[in-house]
Amino acid sequence: MTATAANDYFTESHSVEAVNGRMGKATDPRLAHVMARLVAHLHAFIKDVGLTQEEWATAIDFLTRTGQICDANRQEFILLSDVLGVSMLVDAINNRRPSGATENTVLGPFHVEGVPKYPMGANISQDGGRETCLFQGQVKDLDGIPLEGVRIDVWSDNEDGFYDVQQPGTQPIHNNRGVFVTGPDGRYWFKGIKPVSYPIPDDGPVGQMLGKLGRHPFRPAHMHFIVSREGFETVVTHSFVAGDDYLQSDAVFGVKQSLIAPFEPVAGGDTKWLSTFDFVLNKVAAE
Amino acid sequence: MTATAANDYFTESHSVEAVNGRMGKATDPRLAHVMARLVAHLHAFIKDVGLTQEEWATAIDFLTRTGQICDANRQEFILLSDVLGVSMLVDAINNRRPSGATENTVLGPFHVEGVPKYPMGANISQDGGRETCLFQGQVKDLDGIPLEGVRIDVWSDNEDGFYDVQQPGTQPIHNNRGVFVTGPDGRYWFKGIKPVSYPIPDDGPVGQMLGKLGRHPFRPAHMHFIVSREGFETVVTHSFVAGDDYLQSDAVFGVKQSLIAPFEPVAGGDTKWLSTFDFVLNKVAAE
Ligand SMILES: [Fe+2]
Ligand SMILES: [Fe+2]
Repeated sequence: MTATAANDYFTESHSVEAVNGRMGKATDPRLAHVMARLVAHLHAFIKDVGLTQEEWATAIDFLTRTGQICDANRQEFILLSDVLGVSMLVDAINNRRPSGATENTVLGPFHVEGVPKYPMGANISQDGGRETCLFQGQVKDLDGIPLEGVRIDVWSDNEDGFYDVQQPGTQPIHNNRGVFVTGPDGRYWFKGIKPVSYPIPDDGPVGQMLGKLGRHPFRPAHMHFIVSREGFETVVTHSFVAGDDYLQSDAVFGVKQSLIAPFEPVAGGDTKWLSTFDFVLNKVAAE
Repeated sequence: MTATAANDYFTESHSVEAVNGRMGKATDPRLAHVMARLVAHLHAFIKDVGLTQEEWATAIDFLTRTGQICDANRQEFILLSDVLGVSMLVDAINNRRPSGATENTVLGPFHVEGVPKYPMGANISQDGGRETCLFQGQVKDLDGIPLEGVRIDVWSDNEDGFYDVQQPGTQPIHNNRGVFVTGPDGRYWFKGIKPVSYPIPDDGPVGQMLGKLGRHPFRPAHMHFIVSREGFETVVTHSFVAGDDYLQSDAVFGVKQSLIAPFEPVAGGDTKWLSTFDFVLNKVAAE
């Protein structure tokens, strides 16, 4: 029988050391660090609130149901990350930029690859909509020089608040999506509809949680953008519709002051609305 | 358009306040407290390690797979809680007892309700086994008074390391399980086999994680006990087989010094082994 010090065993007071002391010496150093800090913060949370057995069981059940509702078209854990501010925090930590550069926000679950490239001025709304809108702006670097050859990938919901992928078979393919590439003047312009606010999917565990916390599931209206060019940091962002009721209570915390764009009525124009939103790209740091 | 202070929006530095400030005023106070502290500790962890987008995606995938492998017979999130020391920590926080009272450990996933009550001395091993063992002991209160009418619910694995519920249809029902009730002397005794060490289920996400952390999946051999009587705190615990190779590296951190029991060879006895383990129950605090 091996001689044992009481200290080798798990106790409430040295619970973190007991768990982290078990890690193998050959563990990848970054993984070892992240897991050790995860255990430390997780145990600190449990001790902080004095988590009861019943609350623990509720958490196990919540996590299980969150995993089980996931499928090819639904990712409830990303939704959970979004509503707890985790997605925005990870984005913020990994995309710190100098003042003046366009800020990121969440990608969201509705981006699609392989969307057609259109000439400037094209209309991306295939199912129509009363609140037609011209989106326009200019892409520059931090010195104010217009950038040519910038890829602008855009997508939005339709006037009923749905992305095309949320209604497969009932909406035209690539409805309210398009890719544009800037010319020498760095300018872009395309037609669509003024986006509308919409709820995140709230019929699952995350929606139930929001309900218990007295939070609504809505996002303020926005146009999604991915703006990219070699040598510059890719901007994953939205332009938000100024004046939207949910700007100060976005269910996923995506709004930043600098991302709120004007949507102005146009008298007698080709579209009912005009929204101008410029982008400023930050050079990738030299290695 | 509503006037907005920049401070209302999510920023890296006030991420916790941004999320927790959204909670409704009518939220249940305990839920509001637990969630607010969860968000604080979760964000602190992410900032502490500077979690990358790729690590975030790995975590989302891990949690999703952990939920999806769960079914009626498998609870991978409990397994995750176990191997991170969370189950033991929650148990410790909720079952602090005076010195001298028998300590708790994890319940584990293999407890079954509705097990038959047997007379003292009965043999709970229905599928046989070479390492036959007599389990015995006495239940007292903290003053040393023997306790009558104490319910003792026991279960263990068979000599191949499996609980009956892990091999449905191939093992007798209620194999290596039984319920006993003490008489006026507070004593219990029953026959079974000397338990063997066994691996927790390691063919899923949690097993993969243990592998990456250089940890084995084994638990040291143990007999499970739930010892209960009205007016006393229920003890959920194991007696561990002294000398087991895994006593200092239980995959779920269940071992406590006071729970290691002697298993002594018996010359010419009815069973090959004898294990004596007493219980001391703590009175429920008067309201
Ligand atoms: Fe969106
Ligand atoms: Fe067990």
